[in-house]
Amino acid sequence: MVTSSVVNTYPLSSYTFGTKEPKMEKDTSVADRLARMKVNYMKEGMRTSVEGILLVQEHNHPHILLLQIGNTFCKLPGGRLKPGENEIEGLKRKLTSKLGATVPALVPDWQIGECVAVWWRPNFETIMYPYCPPHITKPKECKKLFLVHLSEREYFAVPKNLKLLAVPLFELYDNVQRYGPVISTIPQQLSRFQFNMIAK
Amino acid sequence: MVTSSVVNTYPLSSYTFGTKEPKMEKDTSVADRLARMKVNYMKEGMRTSVEGILLVQEHNHPHILLLQIGNTFCKLPGGRLKPGENEIEGLKRKLTSKLGATVPALVPDWQIGECVAVWWRPNFETIMYPYCPPHITKPKECKKLFLVHLSEREYFAVPKNLKLLAVPLFELYDNVQRYGPVISTIPQQLSRFQFNMIAK
Repeated sequence: MVTSSVVNTYPLSSYTFGTKEPKMEKDTSVADRLARMKVNYMKEGMRTSVEGILLVQEHNHPHILLLQIGNTFCKLPGGRLKPGENEIEGLKRKLTSKLGATVPALVPDWQIGECVAVWWRPNFETIMYPYCPPHITKPKECKKLFLVHLSEREYFAVPKNLKLLAVPLFELYDNVQRYGPVISTIPQQLSRFQFNMIAK
Repeated sequence: MVTSSVVNTYPLSSYTFGTKEPKMEKDTSVADRLARMKVNYMKEGMRTSVEGILLVQEHNHPHILLLQIGNTFCKLPGGRLKPGENEIEGLKRKLTSKLGATVPALVPDWQIGECVAVWWRPNFETIMYPYCPPHITKPKECKKLFLVHLSEREYFAVPKNLKLLAVPLFELYDNVQRYGPVISTIPQQLSRFQFNMIAK
């Protein structure tokens, strides 16, 4: 695990993007998703999910890689840990599943950095909080966001049903309507880092 | 400087609060404040300000100490650094000025922790961003927020014209109307810390 207040970023153009087989969503509606969450909770207890913040630069400003599903919904690459799975190893597994090439030699050697945010889901509902609310003794999900330090060159394979976007911090900031509370406050959580934007 | 992902908090009732002479605001209006900022910028260049996040607990939930001016406006204890002043030393000086006893022996031995957020003011205007916007080469202010680790017992002297409030994270969260963009996103910035709430 890499921890530093200085983060190197490289131009978007230094990365290569290909495609791979579609990775379908497990649920077709929010109601389905919450129902599946409930079933899993009964079997395995609190869900822990991990997501990666992958940074690139364009026009001398940091951008974050987001996966777009359909025309509007965006999410960070990541997903649910298996029961007992290590957070860092689980995040690497999920990043490879979402963005890694199918040829193992081309999969990035993921460098997981600091945890920058933790969100809690108190009930089987969509709302999450950046703290476990008082009186909630059995939260249903804990979601952790980690910085992922990219090397200067990487190959990403994007599932054919998704689009990979590089979204500038200034587009995310104060834009809860478009990106939701978790992604729209990433700029604030990254504000303490100094970005060392390396030109080509 | 103390850096740890675990933060000890103690009950509000373990602290003692007294008063001291009023500490008047230097400006009586936002326009005055921005005008004074401009004059200082001409003399000294970019303003750097530092503010402290002092945590206590109540009802098993973290609370932040805020200074209330008049009936509505709240701010973190802190202020502007002198040109060339060290950030940590400057924050200690400002905390003592705002909250320390006038008897030196009673002033807390301030333990400054991690920087949790950095905000930029691109122009002589009230709006700030958690990044330096692209194309802004001469920002007018850089404001840094630091965790301050309190000991189990402290004495705070509050200027008579101010009120010291302990505000729960759940009150700050998503409450930009009441607390502004900087203070209302402190819960997100603290979410990665684990609070070790020590009972009496």
